[in-house]
Amino acid sequence: MPKQLPLAVVDACCSPLAREPLNQEQAAELSKLFKAMADPVRLRLLSLIASHSGGEACVCDLTDAFDLTGPTISHHLKVLRESGLITGERRGTWVYYRVRPEVLARLSAVLVPAMS
Amino acid sequence: MPKQLPLAVVDACCSPLAREPLNQEQAAELSKLFKAMADPVRLRLLSLIASHSGGEACVCDLTDAFDLTGPTISHHLKVLRESGLITGERRGTWVYYRVRPEVLARLSAVLVPAMS
Repeated sequence: MPKQLPLAVVDACCSPLAREPLNQEQAAELSKLFKAMADPVRLRLLSLIASHSGGEACVCDLTDAFDLTGPTISHHLKVLRESGLITGERRGTWVYYRVRPEVLARLSAVLVPAMS
Repeated sequence: MPKQLPLAVVDACCSPLAREPLNQEQAAELSKLFKAMADPVRLRLLSLIASHSGGEACVCDLTDAFDLTGPTISHHLKVLRESGLITGERRGTWVYYRVRPEVLARLSAVLVPAMS
């Protein structure tokens, strides 16, 4: 079974930054997501998973793109998963990763600038 | 005069994550922006500036929202400014900060999830 992650940040958060100030709780939640993306390897993993055929990818699809060891890639996948940006589901030998489109959509909406 | 910041990340970057994988250079540039936002105080500063009347705010408008010293707030504003997320322009006594809407718009567009 895929690990279930809290959806509070998705359900509760937030108006666009440019519409009203974030409160402390919202800023704390969002900063965790941005921290997970504040690394080039994790951003590339996220984009490889998000753009992969069928919307999911296993480690076997991801390692060739990097000059990194398996454990290092697994560490970064774990950070992405714990942040709530991706889910992982074991099927047979492999864990298959998917992005959570509702989390990306929410982050995208938060960053929309003010209408000029 | 406001400090001019490189626009490379805005001009060159990127298709939505879910459309095609980021290359190393794009991921490196974007990760710097996400790193600047990977802190709750900086996220709140960004949202206070972005949502402030007239789209700009000086330190005098920002300090009351935080239980932090002036130098700490100045440090976070410097990180936001050096990342390219905001600009600062000195007029008389104060530096006035604005978000760069083109940078927010680009980040927002990068995070748009795939169409289902």
